[in-house]
Amino acid sequence: MTNETRPLQDLIHELSRLPGIGEKSAQRLTYFFLESDKEEVERLANALIKAKDEIIECEICRNYTDQSPCSICSNDWRDPSIVCVVESPKDLLAMERTQKFNGQYHVLHGVIVPERGILPNQLRIKELLERLKEGHIKEIVLATNPTRNGDTTALYLARVLKELDVKVTRLAHGIPIGGDLEYYDEVTIATALNHRVEFNVE
Amino acid sequence: MTNETRPLQDLIHELSRLPGIGEKSAQRLTYFFLESDKEEVERLANALIKAKDEIIECEICRNYTDQSPCSICSNDWRDPSIVCVVESPKDLLAMERTQKFNGQYHVLHGVIVPERGILPNQLRIKELLERLKEGHIKEIVLATNPTRNGDTTALYLARVLKELDVKVTRLAHGIPIGGDLEYYDEVTIATALNHRVEFNVE
Repeated sequence: MTNETRPLQDLIHELSRLPGIGEKSAQRLTYFFLESDKEEVERLANALIKAKDEIIECEICRNYTDQSPCSICSNDWRDPSIVCVVESPKDLLAMERTQKFNGQYHVLHGVIVPERGILPNQLRIKELLERLKEGHIKEIVLATNPTRNGDTTALYLARVLKELDVKVTRLAHGIPIGGDLEYYDEVTIATALNHRVEFNVE
Repeated sequence: MTNETRPLQDLIHELSRLPGIGEKSAQRLTYFFLESDKEEVERLANALIKAKDEIIECEICRNYTDQSPCSICSNDWRDPSIVCVVESPKDLLAMERTQKFNGQYHVLHGVIVPERGILPNQLRIKELLERLKEGHIKEIVLATNPTRNGDTTALYLARVLKELDVKVTRLAHGIPIGGDLEYYDEVTIATALNHRVEFNVE
C-alpha cells in the first residue's frame, strides 16, 4: 500500500532508469524537484529537450556538436594530418584538457564487445575509413582505453589500417591498465600522448 | 579549452545542481541522454513538468497529492482521531509501508533548524493546530526522526500541544538514534509504532 500518486510514480520510474540512479535516489530527486521552484524544474526539462534536439554528430569526427563540422574540425589552426581515435566524446574531452594535442579526432561511439554483439559495423569505423580515403591523414593515434574491449578495438583498427598508407600509433603506456581515460589527470594523459609508439600487429 | 557546446554545457550544469550528482555524474548522464532515444528523453522531461504541474499539497495533511484531499485523508476506513506527524512525504511512505498505521498524517515539510533559520513558522505547524481546532483528533503520534533537529521539533510540538486537549505520543525507541526514518525496514518501524509512548515534557 503506497500513497504515491501517478505523476510522482512516473517521475520516480523515469529517474530510476538512469545509470547510477537507484530507486532511493530517484525518490530523493523527485521530492527535491517538488520542493524546487517551478522555473528551475522547467529549466532542467528544457535543457534536456534542447540538448536532444540540437546536438548532432559532427559529419567529420562524429563528436557531438551543435553545428557540423564541429569547432575542432573547422578550426584552421589544427592539423588535419593527425587524427586521434577515441571511444567516446568524454574521452575526447579528456584529451582536449591536456592542451597538448593539436590534431583532429575521430569518435567511435563505443568499443567492440563480441559477447554483447557489439561489432565493428556498429562503431563509426567506416566513417573513419572514408576520411582516410581523402588522403590527407598521415597518422592515426589509437587512444581507446587500455581495457580488454578497448585493446580489442585498437587491435582490430590497427589490422584494418595496416593495409593503408597511414602511420598507426597508440598512447604510451604509463596509463594504468584497466582504467578509464575519462578519469585521468591532464599530466598523465599528456605524458602518454608524448610517448605514443607505433602500434605493431604481430 | 573544452569543446562542449552550449546545449551540452547547459544540461551538464542543470544536472550537476541536483543533490547527489556531481560534475562527473552530470556529464555521464548527459552523454547517456544523447545516446538514448529521443522519446525516452522527452518522457523524462514531460514527467518532470507534469509532476511539478500536477502535484499539490493535500489541504488536510499537507502530503503531496494530485487531488486534494489526498487518498489517505479521503479514505473513510482510516481513523481521523489519530494523526501521525512526520517530517516529510518520504517518511509518510515509510510509515505506510508498515501497513500497521490506520490513522491519518500530518506532514511538516521540514524540521526546526535554528542555526539555519528554519523556524516553526516555516513548517506546516499552524496547519496542524488548525486541524486540532476541529476537535476530532484525540492523539498525535510524533514521528519525527530521532536526530537532533527531529527531536528539537518533536519537543517543540509536544510543548505546544500540551496546552490542548490531545494525547501526545512518540514512536518507541528501538529505532537507532541518529538515523533517518526513510531507510528503516517495515518491521523496525512497525515495532516502534506499537511501542509508542507518551511524550513527556519535563
